Amino acid sequence: MAAMRIFPKQIDFFEILEAAAVNVTKASATLLDLFEHYTDVEAKVKDLYEIEQEGDILTHEIIRKLNQTFITPIDREDIQALATNIDDIVDLIWAGVDKMVVFRIEKPTREAIQLANDLNLTTEAIVKAIRDLRAKNYERVKEHCIEINRLENLVDRVYRNALGELFDDFKDDPMMVIKWKDLYGHLEDSADKCEDVANILEGIVLKHA
Amino acid sequence: MAAMRIFPKQIDFFEILEAAAVNVTKASATLLDLFEHYTDVEAKVKDLYEIEQEGDILTHEIIRKLNQTFITPIDREDIQALATNIDDIVDLIWAGVDKMVVFRIEKPTREAIQLANDLNLTTEAIVKAIRDLRAKNYERVKEHCIEINRLENLVDRVYRNALGELFDDFKDDPMMVIKWKDLYGHLEDSADKCEDVANILEGIVLKHA
Amino acid sequence: MAAMRIFPKQIDFFEILEAAAVNVTKASATLLDLFEHYTDVEAKVKDLYEIEQEGDILTHEIIRKLNQTFITPIDREDIQALATNIDDIVDLIWAGVDKMVVFRIEKPTREAIQLANDLNLTTEAIVKAIRDLRAKNYERVKEHCIEINRLENLVDRVYRNALGELFDDFKDDPMMVIKWKDLYGHLEDSADKCEDVANILEGIVLKHA
Repeated sequence: MAAMRIFPKQIDFFEILEAAAVNVTKASATLLDLFEHYTDVEAKVKDLYEIEQEGDILTHEIIRKLNQTFITPIDREDIQALATNIDDIVDLIWAGVDKMVVFRIEKPTREAIQLANDLNLTTEAIVKAIRDLRAKNYERVKEHCIEINRLENLVDRVYRNALGELFDDFKDDPMMVIKWKDLYGHLEDSADKCEDVANILEGIVLKHA
Repeated sequence: MAAMRIFPKQIDFFEILEAAAVNVTKASATLLDLFEHYTDVEAKVKDLYEIEQEGDILTHEIIRKLNQTFITPIDREDIQALATNIDDIVDLIWAGVDKMVVFRIEKPTREAIQLANDLNLTTEAIVKAIRDLRAKNYERVKEHCIEINRLENLVDRVYRNALGELFDDFKDDPMMVIKWKDLYGHLEDSADKCEDVANILEGIVLKHA
Repeated sequence: MAAMRIFPKQIDFFEILEAAAVNVTKASATLLDLFEHYTDVEAKVKDLYEIEQEGDILTHEIIRKLNQTFITPIDREDIQALATNIDDIVDLIWAGVDKMVVFRIEKPTREAIQLANDLNLTTEAIVKAIRDLRAKNYERVKEHCIEINRLENLVDRVYRNALGELFDDFKDDPMMVIKWKDLYGHLEDSADKCEDVANILEGIVLKHA
């Protein structure tokens, strides 16, 4: 570890984490826009691809800087866990949209729009939580985590409902069932990842309480 | 970490781990009962939901107490890994049952009953292993781990068989294939998690050998 | 940890890691051979099973030796992560082939052959990377990682294409769609695991730069 400086210029990990969280809200807002207005699909998919790439760059930057410094404002493992889990959300959103293209989906279902809407609210709560973590407003971080968990539970219920409807709505079209079952799974997994981020944040708060 | 006490009242992590493991056997026993006698479905599903909630409470208690003490009877990471993986088993069982409701399954398959039975035996071996870990009977912990692995292999074989049958049994009903393929996956994942618990236990035993 | 020796005979972790990586290439080469010439299926499946078992043995050996020594040539966690992720590749290849048998697949698709081919190239790059890591040729490790990432992107594209084709090629056969969607998933997951190995290798190189 020859390159590691013992007294490095302070690296602002929170700044990069916040940028990564804001990047997630861009992904979820683009997803919601895509689902609500299923127009300019190609351009919006391209936007999402770029957002996914930006997420990768931010994550690599955090990992690289973690390897260059001894001094971190919160535990090294927690920064890494936040960075990778935040990036996973973007990856899952991107993978879902990419599959919509592969599956040649002609129109989102009503449930997909609702899932995208709830997911978007969840990612906004993550940005607020990261900002309050940086400001050491630990009580407010906890409140945002409660909100993330509430929204994740909501997504769970919408997902269950969507899954049940699927077998009715497309009962003569197994291909559509196969496709939407997969796509709903991506949306649900994205919300699950938001909950993982909330769990990491709660762990950090606990250590600093 | 201002709240961390250097000489805390000894926290009995094994007691909570054992309670969490016993909770898993409640989940698998309820699952087996549900599958064997597909009556009072609503009440049994409600029971399973409460067992799942109880699992969450126990896991959070362990994590919270880990953050409050320096002194742990076995490595901190091992306690955390045991707690989260034991909780994952309950979550997977619950998620599977919840999907049965969503999919409006009218009757479990013969293979599902067998999988539930083997899974139940596996979780009972986990309780025994945790008890012997607490008593430092490391040789017997190892024996229980061998038994867990044996049962997991059995589940694997039943699962493979069930999957193959599925495409025959419901060859004109793709919806049922989609549904049971998903449900069998939950049962198999639950058994996989039991194997993960056994691997963690073997790692702990190795360190104390 | 009574059994841990402070001055142990130096354990050659790289030797076992290299053996594990070579074992992965055996798995992917057998897979490719199976797909290209769909003959002697039973014998090739048996070979793959033995390769999977060999992978387990090598992984256990690494974990066991890690627990017996303080002195490791690279970080302990990195050795463990390499070992488990390399083993995961073999497990995923084996699980995919095993499912082909369960699903009674009569003939691989053209896309499956291409995926197996690209996966085989990827695993060969992993062996080269491990060898150059052992020789401390860090620049060349990086080059192999870039190649692994390039191949993984290629697999991604082939996979997307294969998935899209599936719904056309078997539009009147939902069972085949269900089966191949699952099998393609295994092949894609295997390539993803190769990328995980590349990420771990890049992390190691970064620390030794």
